[in-house]
Amino acid sequence: MDDSIQEWKELSREMAFQKYSRKIEKVMFQLPNGKESDFYIKKEGPAVAVLAITKNNEVVLVRQFRPGPKTILNELPGGYIDQKETPEEAGLRELKEETGYLGKAQLVTTALDCAYSTMERSCVVVTECDKVSEPTPDENEFVETILLSLEDFRALLKSGKMTDIEIGYIGLDFLGLL
Amino acid sequence: MDDSIQEWKELSREMAFQKYSRKIEKVMFQLPNGKESDFYIKKEGPAVAVLAITKNNEVVLVRQFRPGPKTILNELPGGYIDQKETPEEAGLRELKEETGYLGKAQLVTTALDCAYSTMERSCVVVTECDKVSEPTPDENEFVETILLSLEDFRALLKSGKMTDIEIGYIGLDFLGLL
Repeated sequence: MDDSIQEWKELSREMAFQKYSRKIEKVMFQLPNGKESDFYIKKEGPAVAVLAITKNNEVVLVRQFRPGPKTILNELPGGYIDQKETPEEAGLRELKEETGYLGKAQLVTTALDCAYSTMERSCVVVTECDKVSEPTPDENEFVETILLSLEDFRALLKSGKMTDIEIGYIGLDFLGLL
Repeated sequence: MDDSIQEWKELSREMAFQKYSRKIEKVMFQLPNGKESDFYIKKEGPAVAVLAITKNNEVVLVRQFRPGPKTILNELPGGYIDQKETPEEAGLRELKEETGYLGKAQLVTTALDCAYSTMERSCVVVTECDKVSEPTPDENEFVETILLSLEDFRALLKSGKMTDIEIGYIGLDFLGLL
């Protein structure tokens, strides 16, 4: 392709806000027209979200209150990937902590999230899941396991009433379930 | 459902960071265990992203550099919804500004984005698109229109190498194209 679109040149980068894991970086770019412009970029990730499916073809979800949208949602298990963890390891750790389920993990891909964030979120599918323990959430996590049929999960994705919707669709697409 | 999951009580909310449209609010919640905890929530949106399909069944995308992932991507047209605009109006405005295409707009749904953001992003599908003008991007927008076949667009969604992936899948799902 004759590509007229150019990469921007990064001139500088500094932390503009940090509290816990919420970080904003001020990044100066030189634009293709030569002008210099500052952008306030969310420094986030890497994260993983898990499409976990039981031997009975049910999707394992985590019912929990979400402070951004201020509502209770049925969400994919997931969280940040710790240093030295692979996405598959992080996905299985989060799945077990939040639901007590485990199965066979496969990394599908790593998805971008936002034009103004560094976030990369890996999509891990975990198939043939069984419940192996009780959930072990953190002290300030309040979660309940929800099992949905593939049909009801697809309707939930389509409704938009959850986060990480792209990971659910990508996982279903990978498994040939769309 | 016997729902053991409770909503959290919001105790206070104040702006912790603001620069241009990047805003972080400090929100104090009382958790279900009675403990008080502060969260740093991204105040974002409302936004719209557009799945635009031409009369030849090609998807209209916007090739552009993205400063968060620091890479050139083929993205869905979209942006913030202005006050007094409907999602359909905002979607058509962004589509025309970024690509010069217009067509018949339908709002599919409004999707949540992140557990720690107020973002709601409407999915608007625009069908029977024609090019009606040249793009009229802002002074600091550098864009090129890309047309992809439905097959190539589906492969792009599955690859994770764009943002607003959920809007692409929801739009295809709504149109019966998955």
